[in-house]
Amino acid sequence: METLRIFVDFAMSPDVLAMLKRGIRGHEMVLPQTPAASVLTKSERDPQFATVDVAFGQPDTGAIAEAPQLKWVHVSSSGITRYDTPEFRALAAQRNLMLSNSASVYNEACAAHVFSFILAQARKLPLALKTRAAGGTPAWHAVRGACKTLRGETVLIVGYGAIGKRLAELLRPFKMKVIAYRRKPRGDERVPVITETQLAHTLADGVDHIVNILPESTETHRFFDAARFASIKPGTIFYNIGRGTTVDQVALLDALHSGRIAAAWLDVTDPEPLPDNHPLWAEANCFITPHVAGGHADEAKTLVRHFLKNLKRYVRGEPLLDRIL
Amino acid sequence: METLRIFVDFAMSPDVLAMLKRGIRGHEMVLPQTPAASVLTKSERDPQFATVDVAFGQPDTGAIAEAPQLKWVHVSSSGITRYDTPEFRALAAQRNLMLSNSASVYNEACAAHVFSFILAQARKLPLALKTRAAGGTPAWHAVRGACKTLRGETVLIVGYGAIGKRLAELLRPFKMKVIAYRRKPRGDERVPVITETQLAHTLADGVDHIVNILPESTETHRFFDAARFASIKPGTIFYNIGRGTTVDQVALLDALHSGRIAAAWLDVTDPEPLPDNHPLWAEANCFITPHVAGGHADEAKTLVRHFLKNLKRYVRGEPLLDRIL
Repeated sequence: METLRIFVDFAMSPDVLAMLKRGIRGHEMVLPQTPAASVLTKSERDPQFATVDVAFGQPDTGAIAEAPQLKWVHVSSSGITRYDTPEFRALAAQRNLMLSNSASVYNEACAAHVFSFILAQARKLPLALKTRAAGGTPAWHAVRGACKTLRGETVLIVGYGAIGKRLAELLRPFKMKVIAYRRKPRGDERVPVITETQLAHTLADGVDHIVNILPESTETHRFFDAARFASIKPGTIFYNIGRGTTVDQVALLDALHSGRIAAAWLDVTDPEPLPDNHPLWAEANCFITPHVAGGHADEAKTLVRHFLKNLKRYVRGEPLLDRIL
Repeated sequence: METLRIFVDFAMSPDVLAMLKRGIRGHEMVLPQTPAASVLTKSERDPQFATVDVAFGQPDTGAIAEAPQLKWVHVSSSGITRYDTPEFRALAAQRNLMLSNSASVYNEACAAHVFSFILAQARKLPLALKTRAAGGTPAWHAVRGACKTLRGETVLIVGYGAIGKRLAELLRPFKMKVIAYRRKPRGDERVPVITETQLAHTLADGVDHIVNILPESTETHRFFDAARFASIKPGTIFYNIGRGTTVDQVALLDALHSGRIAAAWLDVTDPEPLPDNHPLWAEANCFITPHVAGGHADEAKTLVRHFLKNLKRYVRGEPLLDRIL
């Protein structure tokens, strides 16, 4: 077996590092001089990077271009924004460089997170948890009458990848109508799929929930802009667990004011966190969590396990899991 | 068809009253002189009650005893506390009086409500919604690392009736282990069932979530008392959407302080609402909604539809839905 030089750069506790070391045995692990702050943070340029075969983390694209032996990059996140450019795709094609991500690590947590948003909204938790009211009082009727069961409601999942698919599975017992929006349907969706041409009509026709799981790219930048929000039937609930840049936040604010969007639940914003004086913080019907949708106990361990599984595949020449390029 | 005198006493808007009137046509509807404040409120004694055949609402048991023609009481709630006594059962048996409740009306909403608690706890929503933190900071790690996916966790449903069954269905895609506690298993549970003899062992062994859906009765009074809480493995999450009286709230408070119960989510308390100076309000890990678990849009209409369905059955001599006695 060829000994690989593997550059590993993501935030790890000592026990996770030990687990990774055991898994990598037989190869050479190269750790950065300045470790990354989180699994989502871009690495600092590191002089050792130029000599590695494999990179696990969020390596800088410039550094990748200058690492002639690098054959495989395994990204420690589900999002691959910094690699999703024509330039990087050209580089990867020219160099026969493979790119995989950690999507499978986050699917379950992301789907559960947005589902917690959907249910918290349906059961009016933010209001109910601060209402101390006796049965029969107007305050009590206001909460109780606003609660919903979700039955028969429609969810449009915008960006229907692995997370969307899992969300659809979790929603199944609720007897909701799930629709997927996907630029290029693949035929394996198991729910009705609409594409660009039907989107405006579907939004105008009315859905109860829009779950935005779009990744960041030049095509998805401000996908939800003023025109898109203006086409939405009033009263819709909007969720975003994709990337903050896919939403024009000024337009979202307007939509909340006009009532087209009755409530917004966001795990991602642009920037993160929003500055303290950002008006979305002050919106009564806007609920924001700090980009934690993918979080789960033992996240770092799951990430490492996923990488090690892929490393075995790489060494054996088998197809990589979550391969992007 | 015999013309029935039907006493109807529950809080209704004019359109729901109109719908009920249409449905009851051919019979005589008797409305109380003082209408009830909510579907859960006990009716005032009403002189007309002594002459009715059917009652829909929350009629007083003393009034029932003095209404010689009354043959059927349809309770406008899922809970039947005031009728669940040996005295009332004896009266009903002696008089051939039938009692049905509105359980099917609330199952879906109650199951969704407690599920919203479970997911909000798993995704740490109360903390996450007030955390403004950049990725990689200690505050961010504290939230993200505390989030869970639920996969592989164990839920014990205490009081496994229609709501518990529906909850088990909703949980199915999450790959959790669901256990039901039931005094008398019926064999139709579709999940592993434990009875009184195994309960202490199961609690000591450790479950991740205890969902209390016990109804109120002399047997369930303070079912969760100091001894029961003391037998629970530390770190368990406790939910109550049954009745507040089934929990010794002082013991719950102790269990929260000792960490045996890591968090409590309560839709019911004793009394409701708790007085403003009650220490449970001040507990950081105690989350309380004001008895709204059964609430859903058009609740009154669903209640009326359910009653009318049962009225048809009653007239035809068919078995009643949700019959208790």
